[in-house]
Formats: sequence, structure tokens, C-alpha cells
Amino acid sequence: MRFRVESFFGRQGGRTFLRGAWLGSRVWVLVFALAAGSPVTNGESGAEEFRVPGDLAQRLERLRESAWRSNRAMERLAYLCDRFGPRLSGSTNLEAAIDWILGELKADGFDRVTGEPVEVTRWVRGKESLRMLSPHAMELPMLGLGGSVGTAPEGLVADCLVVTNFAELRARESEVRGRIVLFNAAFTSYGETVSYRVQGAIAAAKAGAVASLVRSVAPYSLRTPHTGMMSYDPAVTKIPHAAIAAEDADRLMREQQRGTRLRLELNMSARTDPNPARSRNVVADLLGSESPGEIVVMGGHIDSWDVGQGAQDDGGGCMAAWEVMRLVKELGLRPKRTMRLVLWTNEENGLGGAKAYVEAHRQEMAHHVLAFESDEGIFAPTGFRFTGSERGMKLLRGLLPLVQPAAAARIDVGARPADAAQMIPEGVPVLDLKGDRDRYFWFHHTEADTVDKVSPSDMRQCVAAMAILLFGVADHPVRLPR
Amino acid sequence: MRFRVESFFGRQGGRTFLRGAWLGSRVWVLVFALAAGSPVTNGESGAEEFRVPGDLAQRLERLRESAWRSNRAMERLAYLCDRFGPRLSGSTNLEAAIDWILGELKADGFDRVTGEPVEVTRWVRGKESLRMLSPHAMELPMLGLGGSVGTAPEGLVADCLVVTNFAELRARESEVRGRIVLFNAAFTSYGETVSYRVQGAIAAAKAGAVASLVRSVAPYSLRTPHTGMMSYDPAVTKIPHAAIAAEDADRLMREQQRGTRLRLELNMSARTDPNPARSRNVVADLLGSESPGEIVVMGGHIDSWDVGQGAQDDGGGCMAAWEVMRLVKELGLRPKRTMRLVLWTNEENGLGGAKAYVEAHRQEMAHHVLAFESDEGIFAPTGFRFTGSERGMKLLRGLLPLVQPAAAARIDVGARPADAAQMIPEGVPVLDLKGDRDRYFWFHHTEADTVDKVSPSDMRQCVAAMAILLFGVADHPVRLPR
Repeated sequence: MRFRVESFFGRQGGRTFLRGAWLGSRVWVLVFALAAGSPVTNGESGAEEFRVPGDLAQRLERLRESAWRSNRAMERLAYLCDRFGPRLSGSTNLEAAIDWILGELKADGFDRVTGEPVEVTRWVRGKESLRMLSPHAMELPMLGLGGSVGTAPEGLVADCLVVTNFAELRARESEVRGRIVLFNAAFTSYGETVSYRVQGAIAAAKAGAVASLVRSVAPYSLRTPHTGMMSYDPAVTKIPHAAIAAEDADRLMREQQRGTRLRLELNMSARTDPNPARSRNVVADLLGSESPGEIVVMGGHIDSWDVGQGAQDDGGGCMAAWEVMRLVKELGLRPKRTMRLVLWTNEENGLGGAKAYVEAHRQEMAHHVLAFESDEGIFAPTGFRFTGSERGMKLLRGLLPLVQPAAAARIDVGARPADAAQMIPEGVPVLDLKGDRDRYFWFHHTEADTVDKVSPSDMRQCVAAMAILLFGVADHPVRLPR
Repeated sequence: MRFRVESFFGRQGGRTFLRGAWLGSRVWVLVFALAAGSPVTNGESGAEEFRVPGDLAQRLERLRESAWRSNRAMERLAYLCDRFGPRLSGSTNLEAAIDWILGELKADGFDRVTGEPVEVTRWVRGKESLRMLSPHAMELPMLGLGGSVGTAPEGLVADCLVVTNFAELRARESEVRGRIVLFNAAFTSYGETVSYRVQGAIAAAKAGAVASLVRSVAPYSLRTPHTGMMSYDPAVTKIPHAAIAAEDADRLMREQQRGTRLRLELNMSARTDPNPARSRNVVADLLGSESPGEIVVMGGHIDSWDVGQGAQDDGGGCMAAWEVMRLVKELGLRPKRTMRLVLWTNEENGLGGAKAYVEAHRQEMAHHVLAFESDEGIFAPTGFRFTGSERGMKLLRGLLPLVQPAAAARIDVGARPADAAQMIPEGVPVLDLKGDRDRYFWFHHTEADTVDKVSPSDMRQCVAAMAILLFGVADHPVRLPR
């Protein structure tokens, strides 16, 4: 999962959609409520219109029971993570993982299995290190941020100025020139605190800094640096930008408060390849029996950062959606509409996969009934979010009595998963799975995002809950209203 | 805090003490109950004999209020950690930290401030790395274990065999020769699981392994290796022994279960200096007004492992005990008996400081009224443990009504803090502060044991709770009965 930095207003199908800096679901709920003009009510008033027929309910129960018994999603996640490792856009790891997935999908017997070409940016971290020279010589664990330029080959030595926010940077602008600025912003929420990672290099360079550092965006740390996407402004000098662990950010701030001179040496050989690399979106269909042209998309993003294993972000989401499709196929439950697995590439640093999917399938967009994505981690499920019409919400909520455990039987307003959300301006209703907004960010974009962070029982429960809504929509007598 | 591996029976002052592999307080409670012959009852039946006089209660309340207002312990902990860093026995860091502490103690105006000489083992980690060669080339985060030998300078390349416990090692003994054994034992409790760290190299070498690895002993990991003490048997070949992160231990096990050949390259230049180094115990007295020869000891261990900052293990315990003494001095509350701060050196890899203290103060042992140590971290206080007589427990429990918060007003049976416990065979009653047996081990012996892991408010509360019992015993009309 990455931070969405674009902003956009669009009008499609008579409904206004607002795309903006995403500041947590509460703000989005507000934004959506304003945009929609009225609150979305629960599904009970649509009980008759969107009643789930008994035979569909039986199929959904079979699917749910099968999901609870299957470990396949976890097994595939472990294999994906262990065998291919992290899967940064432009890497051979990612393309090898995609090759393996395409082969497995064909073996699963889906109707169409394709790797659709996508041009992606190729950023290479290279060698990197950060060393404190004074008051003590010591290595500081760090991770360069995605898209950052490197230092000169001989590295960069400068004094450090620690600030806690942008306002303090402005207040101390006279001290910035020639220095490395460290933004030591306390974690509030990911959506809020990530602004220092995304915008920090621009603000620091404007003030004359030679490089910038950011306290890793996370609520807990075991000396854990977190990478992620950052931005440059074409009008502002590009300076190297990296993340350090919360512990070291605090330490540097304490030393500054004591009046200690902080001298740092930064070495980064990061660079962006001038030529785009080729990657692929994975697309696999299970064709509908009655309306094969109507499509229910489900998936996650198959790329990851170049550290850890990309297990929670977002291998788990990919494997969960795939498992829903595999179980439907295995049980011989062909739905009325087409179910389509999409594993988007290049979510982390470009959204190239999501944009290419919309372009490649523009003719089908009007027939996309629903687009689902899981990209907040696989945890004990606590429900879903939906961006779409009130009547669409009523149909979905009509399926909730079949969702177990009860904690997962909940749909809030305001889904905005990065890839599927690219279809919101096309009028496509979007659903996503809620994750754990605290624990997810403990290991998000770190060496610790490894397969052990996903619990097999949480995975089974997520697959089961997703299966009810996704097969339910694909096989419902009524097409999900826009 | 380290694992106690010695075992010992002694009889002192008419009471039998059992010193054994320490397997958690419940086992110790049982052992103590057997040794003492009867369960220790609560303090209420001793209410009259050990009544706290009103003037002492007032002094204790003043002390408690002052503790709640003071940040000095946290400030000193941060300075200790940031300025001197980790403090392994034999390092210049440790001796520089001790010099600073001695100077500060003198400035605080204590009556006697000395650095008492101790010979300590000097183990040097040197350069080290662990690389997986197949099925993929990748670095595995690792930490050599304290006391381990190194590899040959060119390193060591071998296949890896993963076992989950000692029984599995024996069952697969025919596969061990020439291999690197990894013990991937699931964490149950520190006392139980640490046996693979302490004894793993002996068991693996006996079976013919060329090196051994252990899953880090911890209940949670963010790709975090944990160091700590390990043992050799003089009759068994010494092989290199190191810890890896839980994530990588699990991964190697998954690969083995898939039938993958695991080839590793281990490089360690660890060595033990043949000559002992010189260190010091810090000893500072606040002389008693009526019975200066009667001594209440309080402290922690000032050495640490060579990673992180030794903040929770055990800088926090040292600073908390020091702060109790400083507050007593600052308030002009001279107690009847002598309060003595002891910051033991070399707890982590030798217990040289604790043993030297007993030797140097043998003549005073009979007059040691109580020895307190905090070495399970500084967390929101949940009480104390005591090893001593029933009547001693009654006196201590008589002070509990003054301890706040209420959660801290509790004393269980069975203290065994590593340094102070060296005085148990001498008949000295021992008290310690309970920590958080889960969270403590998240960062114990890692790069993440940094000052931010200690909460300033927890520190104030611990100091306040300790002050009631320690000044209470030092100034009580009745000497704590043995």
C-alpha cells in the first residue's frame, strides 16, 4: 500500500467522486458523505429487492466452509515470498514471480490467463549507508526512499538539523543551508505522518538542505527503518532522501537538545533507470454462465518494495483473492457473471499497473460490476469498505448475514484501495477489506514484512468473508447497481 | 539480565537455599516453599510488630511525591545511553560510563563513592555475517552469541539442518556431521527457550556439527536478532554459535520442509581475550544515622551487551535505584541504616561484579539487611518478589499500604535477580522489581534496547514504589528479620 498523492475531481455516471490526499477513513467518510449528498443507509430497507435466493445462499455456505478448510492461500503466499522474495517493479524477482503465478493459474484451469504488458519505472536502491561521525562514530540503520537520487560517489558529509514538523523547518530556515535535515515527526496516523516521507525532500531542498532524512512512518519500532515512495518537485533541486529508525531519530533530537553538534555521512548509490522496464498485470477469468461480459474484479498488487518479502503488502491480498477464485472453480460453482482475478503491478512506485488496466479494458469499464482489492494486510477480518451507490450498498449488505465471523459482517462507506480506485472515475463501484491500521504499519515497507506476519487462520477467515461478497455479487440475481 | 546456569546448594544462617537453573518464578516459588518448610503468609498477622510509625510514613509519603515529580532518572538514563552507548564488559564504553557515574555520584554528595576493582572476561564480537548461498543469495541478519569462538578467517560454508528441539537433533544425529545446525525452537518462556542459546553449541558439536545457529529467544520479532550468553563444555569441540531472527529461522525451516538444500556461509571473527580486563563495581553509600553498619543495598548491573544501548537491560534499573538514593539525600531524609547503591559490572557474561562484591564485603555480609536489584526492565510497576524469611516478608508487606499505584503494592515469593542473588547463600534477604515478562523480551539483548523503550512515567512510578520499600527498610524501627 502506498500513499495516494494525486488529487482529482471527476464526474461519472451522475455521481461526483473526490480523489484527494487520503487521510484515513473518517475523513473519507466525511468527504464521501458530502459528495454523495446523503448518508448511505443500511441494507435492510432493500431486503426484498436484493433478497439472496436460497440456492445462492447454499452455494455461498459451501464456499465459506471450503475456505475455512483450505490452507492453499497460505501455502502459496509462503512459496511466493520464500522463492521470489521482494518484488520491486523492474526487478527480475517480480517477473519470475509473475511467471510462476501465470503457470499456476493455468494449472488451476481458469478460462483466460494473461500477463498484460505494463511499462514501469525502475528504481534501484544500490549500496547505501548512514554513519554518525559525531558525537560518536556509529552506523545508523537506514533505507533510502523510493525514487530518491543518490549522493555523489564519495558520499556526503554534513551537520544535521532536526525538526519535528514543516512549521519548525520554516521557523529555522536560516540554519538549514548546507545541512542534512531530519524530520522527526511523531506518528499520528499513516495518512498524516507520511507527508514527511513524501514531501520532505522538497521542503528541505527549498530551504537549502543537501539531503533529508525522515523518522520512519510507523507506530512501533525495533530499530526498524521503513522505505516507501517519495516525491520531487521539478522546480526544486533533487536531494537524497532516506528513512531512519524511530530510535535514532529520537536520539539525534535528544543530542541536538543537549547542544551537541551532529555530523553525519550519507552514502546512497540509488538511481532511476532512464528507460522504463516491462512488467505485467496478471489477469485470469472464470467466465460467467449467464452474463460473461459483466465482470467482478478481485485482487491486490503483486509488486512490493525491495525489502522483506512483500508478504502483508500485498502478497497476502493477492493470494486471498486468488483463493476465492480457485475455490469457486474447485467446487464447480460457475457464477452468472465473470469473476476476474487482477494482480496489479507497480502499485508501490507509479500505479502503472492500475492505470494500464483501465486503459487496456476501457471498453469493458461500463461492464465492471465491482472492483475489489485487499491492500491493508490480512488480519482477523473486521469488515469491508465500499465506494458506490446507496443501492449497491444495499445489495452488498444483503449478503452480510452469510458472512462469518460476525465481526467481519460489516461494510462501511469509503473504499479507496490504490489500484481498484483508479476505476472510481470510470464509475466502477469499489470494495476493499479492512486491515489492522496499527499492526500493519509495524512492518509495512520493512525487512520484517515476511510471511510469518500473516496468520493462517486469519487468512482462511479473510478468504471466507471475501468469498461471500465476491461470489455473492457475481452470482446474484440482480446486477450490483451503480 | 542473563540466564543463570550454575547450580548450587548452600546452608547459611540455618536456612537452606537452592540455586538452580532458573525456570520462572512459579518453579522458584515451589522450590522456596520446599526449602523454607512452610508457605509465607501475608503481612497482616505481623501488623503490630512491624507497624510503620507515623513519622516514617510521612517521610515515605514525601519521598513518593518527590519521585513522582522528578525526571532525573530518565534524564540520566538518556545521557548514559546516548553518550556511552552499549557497555560490554572489557569495553572502553563501560569504563567511561563508570567514570561519569562516579563523578555524578560525588556531585550528588553521597558519603562514600568508590569504583571497586573487578577482573572481567573480555569477549570481542568482531566482524560477522551470515549469508544464505542457496536456494538464494541473501544476507541473514545475525548476532554472534557472547563467548562464541569465531570461524576460520575465510569463513565456513556448509549445508544447514533445521531442528526444532534437542530430541529432534538426537533423532537426526546421522545427518548432522559437517553441517550447521539451526535450533528453531518456538518461544515458550525465556527461562525455557534460552536453553538452545546456552546449550545449543554443545549439543550440536557433540553430534558433529561445524557451527550452530539459534532462533532468537523472543516472543516477537521485526527481523530482530538477539544476542546473549552461551556455554561450551571443555570436553566438547568449541564451534561458532550465533542467533538469527525468528523470521529467517522459520523461513529456513519452510525451505527444508520443501526439500530444498540450504547452503550457508558463516563468518565470525569473535574471540575471547586471553587476559582478563579491569572493570569496577560502583558503590555509593548514604550512611545511616543510627546503625551505619547495617546496609540496605539497591542497584542493577551497569554492563550490557554490545548492541543497542543497554537501556532496559539494565541502565533503567541502575538509574532507578540511584534516583531513590538521590531523592533521599535531596530531601535530607537520612535513614537509620546505611543505604548503598551498587551498580554491578559484568552481569551479562560472567557475574564477575556480583561475585567480587561478595568477596570484597564478606565481613559486612552479616550486616546486609536487604539486597534489592531491578533487572527485568522498567515498566508500569506490578509489584516485587522477595526471597527471605516469613518475618522479613511481614515487615515488607507492612510497607505496602504506602505503595502506589495499587498494582505495585504486591510482593510475591521468589526473587532471584542475578547479581543480588549471589548474596542469598550468605543469608542476605533479596528483593526485586517485577518487569513485563513479555515486552521486555521483544528488545532484550538487541539493537532495539534503546532509551525510548523506557517510559518516563513508568520510570517515575517504579522509583516511587521502590523508594517506599527501600527507604522503609532502611529507616524502619525494626531491622528486617532474616
